[in-house]
Amino acid sequence: MAEVSNKQVILRDYVVKAFPKESDLCVINTATIKLKLPAETNEPADAVTSSKVQLVLLKNLYLSCDPFQRLLMESVQGLSVPSMSSYTPGSTIHGYGVAKVLDSRNPDLKAGDLVWGTTNWEEYSLITTPQVLFKIHHTDIPLSYYTGILGMPGMTAYVGFYEICSPKKGEYVFISAAAGAVGQLVGQFAKLMGCYVVGSAGSNEKVDLLKNKFGFHEAFNYKEENDLNVALKRYFPEGIDIYFENVGGKTLDAVLLNMRLHGRISGCGMISQYNLDKPEGVTNLMQLIYKRIRFHGFSVPDHYHLYPKFLDFMLPRIRQGKIVYVEDIVEGLENGPAALVGLFKGRNFGRQVVVVSHD
Amino acid sequence: MAEVSNKQVILRDYVVKAFPKESDLCVINTATIKLKLPAETNEPADAVTSSKVQLVLLKNLYLSCDPFQRLLMESVQGLSVPSMSSYTPGSTIHGYGVAKVLDSRNPDLKAGDLVWGTTNWEEYSLITTPQVLFKIHHTDIPLSYYTGILGMPGMTAYVGFYEICSPKKGEYVFISAAAGAVGQLVGQFAKLMGCYVVGSAGSNEKVDLLKNKFGFHEAFNYKEENDLNVALKRYFPEGIDIYFENVGGKTLDAVLLNMRLHGRISGCGMISQYNLDKPEGVTNLMQLIYKRIRFHGFSVPDHYHLYPKFLDFMLPRIRQGKIVYVEDIVEGLENGPAALVGLFKGRNFGRQVVVVSHD
Repeated sequence: MAEVSNKQVILRDYVVKAFPKESDLCVINTATIKLKLPAETNEPADAVTSSKVQLVLLKNLYLSCDPFQRLLMESVQGLSVPSMSSYTPGSTIHGYGVAKVLDSRNPDLKAGDLVWGTTNWEEYSLITTPQVLFKIHHTDIPLSYYTGILGMPGMTAYVGFYEICSPKKGEYVFISAAAGAVGQLVGQFAKLMGCYVVGSAGSNEKVDLLKNKFGFHEAFNYKEENDLNVALKRYFPEGIDIYFENVGGKTLDAVLLNMRLHGRISGCGMISQYNLDKPEGVTNLMQLIYKRIRFHGFSVPDHYHLYPKFLDFMLPRIRQGKIVYVEDIVEGLENGPAALVGLFKGRNFGRQVVVVSHD
Repeated sequence: MAEVSNKQVILRDYVVKAFPKESDLCVINTATIKLKLPAETNEPADAVTSSKVQLVLLKNLYLSCDPFQRLLMESVQGLSVPSMSSYTPGSTIHGYGVAKVLDSRNPDLKAGDLVWGTTNWEEYSLITTPQVLFKIHHTDIPLSYYTGILGMPGMTAYVGFYEICSPKKGEYVFISAAAGAVGQLVGQFAKLMGCYVVGSAGSNEKVDLLKNKFGFHEAFNYKEENDLNVALKRYFPEGIDIYFENVGGKTLDAVLLNMRLHGRISGCGMISQYNLDKPEGVTNLMQLIYKRIRFHGFSVPDHYHLYPKFLDFMLPRIRQGKIVYVEDIVEGLENGPAALVGLFKGRNFGRQVVVVSHD
């Protein structure tokens, strides 16, 4: 059987304590792949169970750029995200994506099925862990949404807000990185619940988006604030009940000073800290005790059993236009590296998606 | 009716960003008090409800020295402990104690009753908020224990360990300030539950106490460790499931590096930070996310409804000698200031109690 060319995005070398550059990644055209699984006798056995690995061959359609991918560019002590191990210099990077099944030994997946989950940054991927793939049943929604609002970031917003923060109507909610893949949804969830919602973002265009597209009550550009504590006091004279933590560092320190009694913080990322030589020290942790606050770090793969419940919640609201989503779509895998590193400079405007192929 | 002299401990002036000194407090002998409540017509009305305040007149027997009292010596932003407001320079300080009721307008308390709760550092106190007093029903236990193992610190250990940390048999538990009023109990609770327990303290005598009196599996003197991260790795090669946070700062930072997946931290104080000009920055907070850790700040007055359940748990175990308690008792209110400020230098050996009167 003929082999086809398989464009790939490779990590050149570990990125240590610095912002990643486009040149840390490269796009290569040298690999080829057969668009049919090998004969079963040639399949690898699982190292642990000795049973045959249930290979799945994917054609990748959409890939997403996620902050956690920065962590995979170095060997982070203690990072423990299921199915997401550190990248290997010289090898293809991985992340979340939407793909079409071309061939499958997994009984739950057949050729022609659409899936979202963990895949590689290349045109075609041979997946050895099909348990990280979710079958897509609802195709009246744009397929790219399964990298965002209906995928990992959507679940992150849903679990982090509803399950971890136990929100109540009328509470005061603050969201950092609010125009990002997760933040824009948390803000809309909070609004639907009857909370007062303020978001911060890194440009005036994003602030406009938060207020006029997503319906945040207020939003501000953190780069234009000399003192985040003063800014938060302006928007939250009564304090903050719920903080959805996406950035860490100085923002977290200022938020702690403004939390209310029995406040809740859900943390799924600290993007401001990933590229620093040394993380910033957070000095106001005593507020966690004075105000009896719960800070709950979480990682959404621990909560994927809630995905059906999440879909039941989201699908009607998306169809009715009650929840909207903004994507920043770039065409072509060759433009993936620029899109991915742009994330850490805040260049994306909404969920950053890379189109590998439209079908 | 004759008045008697009423010795009092007074705060001279606010203590700001420094270790408190004995001279920040003074003992005065100039006040007098009538050992009978005033006629009802002269009683003050409650500012909020306009109803008569239910005055209770106490003879103080035992007072305890608690880390949170340091916070009351200055005006701390956001401190919000029920019934514990900041001290007023020139006025008597307050805290937890055991006392005998001499006279009462509260229907639940009568002359001769013994109580524990919030009282003032003086020989006799007129209490206007009797809801902060708990009646003592079991007097076969040393009365001073109601300032410790059967009072606020006992409840703190019980709530923080059982309710907040959701411990399971076989888990790895670390306790800082482990020889203190709270830590010594958390260690014994963890041991009873079948956990592996290690504590840190600030002297070799305290380390000996932890291992040989309270049955900790291991203990170490943090002052003799150059690198707390290295020390923790030595005692917890598999990592820490539960951290009972009493100190904050550098210790917390090192603990974060050694926490296990889905670990829990209950925080009721950060004594290492109370006297600093500026709190130490904690840099390893990303571990909260990587390991999906829950940090839960709490204050025990929020949980006093559990006191009957707590007593049912504690009383038989104290009587059977299954839980022991070490107190550091000084005689005389005039020695109270030295005992209180000694707490912040770690001079106490077990629960620090001041005897005002034995009966």
